[in-house]
Amino acid sequence: MRLLHPENVEDIALGAAVLGTGGGGDPYIGKLMGTQSIREFGPVTLLSLDEIDDDALIVPTAMMGAPTVIVEKLPKGDEIIKAYRALESYLGQEIEATMSIEAGGLNSVTPLTVAARLRIPMVDCDGMGRAFPELQMVTATMYGVSSTPFAMGDEKGNSAILNTINNRWTETFSRTITIDMGCTAMIACYATRGKELKQWAVPGTMSLVEEIGRTIREARASKVNVVEAVREAVGGFEVFKGKIVDVRRRTEKGFARGEALIAGVDEYGSQKLELHFQNENLVAKVDGEIMVSVPDLITVLDTETGEPITTESLRYGFRVTVLGIPCNERWRTPEGLELVGPRYFGYDHDWVPVEQRYG
Amino acid sequence: MRLLHPENVEDIALGAAVLGTGGGGDPYIGKLMGTQSIREFGPVTLLSLDEIDDDALIVPTAMMGAPTVIVEKLPKGDEIIKAYRALESYLGQEIEATMSIEAGGLNSVTPLTVAARLRIPMVDCDGMGRAFPELQMVTATMYGVSSTPFAMGDEKGNSAILNTINNRWTETFSRTITIDMGCTAMIACYATRGKELKQWAVPGTMSLVEEIGRTIREARASKVNVVEAVREAVGGFEVFKGKIVDVRRRTEKGFARGEALIAGVDEYGSQKLELHFQNENLVAKVDGEIMVSVPDLITVLDTETGEPITTESLRYGFRVTVLGIPCNERWRTPEGLELVGPRYFGYDHDWVPVEQRYG
Repeated sequence: MRLLHPENVEDIALGAAVLGTGGGGDPYIGKLMGTQSIREFGPVTLLSLDEIDDDALIVPTAMMGAPTVIVEKLPKGDEIIKAYRALESYLGQEIEATMSIEAGGLNSVTPLTVAARLRIPMVDCDGMGRAFPELQMVTATMYGVSSTPFAMGDEKGNSAILNTINNRWTETFSRTITIDMGCTAMIACYATRGKELKQWAVPGTMSLVEEIGRTIREARASKVNVVEAVREAVGGFEVFKGKIVDVRRRTEKGFARGEALIAGVDEYGSQKLELHFQNENLVAKVDGEIMVSVPDLITVLDTETGEPITTESLRYGFRVTVLGIPCNERWRTPEGLELVGPRYFGYDHDWVPVEQRYG
Repeated sequence: MRLLHPENVEDIALGAAVLGTGGGGDPYIGKLMGTQSIREFGPVTLLSLDEIDDDALIVPTAMMGAPTVIVEKLPKGDEIIKAYRALESYLGQEIEATMSIEAGGLNSVTPLTVAARLRIPMVDCDGMGRAFPELQMVTATMYGVSSTPFAMGDEKGNSAILNTINNRWTETFSRTITIDMGCTAMIACYATRGKELKQWAVPGTMSLVEEIGRTIREARASKVNVVEAVREAVGGFEVFKGKIVDVRRRTEKGFARGEALIAGVDEYGSQKLELHFQNENLVAKVDGEIMVSVPDLITVLDTETGEPITTESLRYGFRVTVLGIPCNERWRTPEGLELVGPRYFGYDHDWVPVEQRYG
């Protein structure tokens, strides 16, 4: 157990954007929201998974929607409180703690703002070890945990509680409601007992992203190669280095989808990398060949500053380094690959572990 | 107080389709569902409005969606029960009776099937005195009654409870969820105390539609002009008589939209009537001029049998008579016309009472 202060939040938001693999929200907005919540409501208690009682009720919270819209429509912070309370009364039991469903510049911080406002602790874990675009793409799904009762709310005061027959249906319904809510919504779902949580959660994610954020901050201060420091901290591989020469993006079915084209520099001088994204980076093709794909992480960093660049922030002219990072081992099982492998996303291609190509 | 038996249901479904003004669902399906429910669960108690206690909790039920789809995907009957129970637990109080939100071949019977299954009574009233395509188009909206908590369920077992800031938002959210549910859903909404219900409900609708159904049945048996008997029973006007020569239809944003073209016969021989519909008939243009429009009722009857023809059943070659029927006086107020007048539906045209043109 330890307390999270504004300085922890800065590292968390920054480091989480590395595991956010292009998605999970803008770390700058995450930092602003998180530090503001702590200044207003006090520090947040972070509990490790083994500090959680087996029968405690834990409910993750997150922001859902198109990151391109989220950066233009900042959350007020209280959208989720009403929905969270409604869920609590629906469940007929007090919620003892919240947690992140995914790692991301915004979504590692969203539950922290909820924890601050409700004065409940947050658990040091998440449900992906990275960020994924769809709601059923959570380790919980592999363990048969239902995403419902699923609560969602918007900034206008509308809210909904869904009960579905499986998590894929929750994705369907909540996505269209999110679109109606203006492409962003606050959600609370995957209510779980401590005992089950210890089985499905990816442990230590908050501490890990904080560590990554600290690495970036310290590398900058000591003027060492930030990208290389990050690569080492996450156990990743350098996939490409270049300059963004084209970005095509569209908000489609509630997602920020698109492709970015990166022209190589240095040893990649003659090559081109094409990056496909659906909120998160899905696939990196070098000269037409898929070199890294979901469920492994593809992270784009500013070559100079090491700043992680989310998909909604990709711009012509940015000098970037692309890292490939091995995903959590649960995604590497047949069940995991069925849920989040390249074929689910429509690629006619089997997943090849990133370390097999670059290790 | 009286009991509704299968023979009552037959008259109710048939007569309700006249006030359904093209929408509200197919009376044949309504008849099948209603008689089956009563055979299985026993007769349903019908209470008049003044038999309802002021503090009784009444929750209307209905089927929502595109009638074109409803005829191909019959309700099982238990879709709504789970959602209804969830709503009851959400409200924290027993629901004492249900009622129709609109008059229609299916939607006058839907609550009857719920009443039979849950062994609760049904109230002799509705929320429109006709059918309208959108959810906020209920007299309750004019009286400031909220449509939420709004419960909905599908045949697969998915359900949702919505809480919104106004009834227009409920329409938005529930319509897209209905589309996700496969263009049909069972809904429960506009939970109301008896005292408020007596203010906003249109009283006696069930008895009225049963009376209209009986009129049709008896006119057929005694071989008198059925259409003329219906016209007299509803206090309507003959607008047109002809043959359907074209129907254009599309399922759009969850609605059955389209136009039918009717070529006149007899005294209408040189004229053409164009009928616009969005689930319900909205506007009847004769030779390009709007002659009847919402909120007044436009009902298409088979000229021979007097059978009301719903918009999803309009077919080339049908010989039909079109009636115009004055709507409930509440829709004729400025507030009513704002909610359901021709301008809301995109027509650049003021409402002219049907009796002014034909009376």
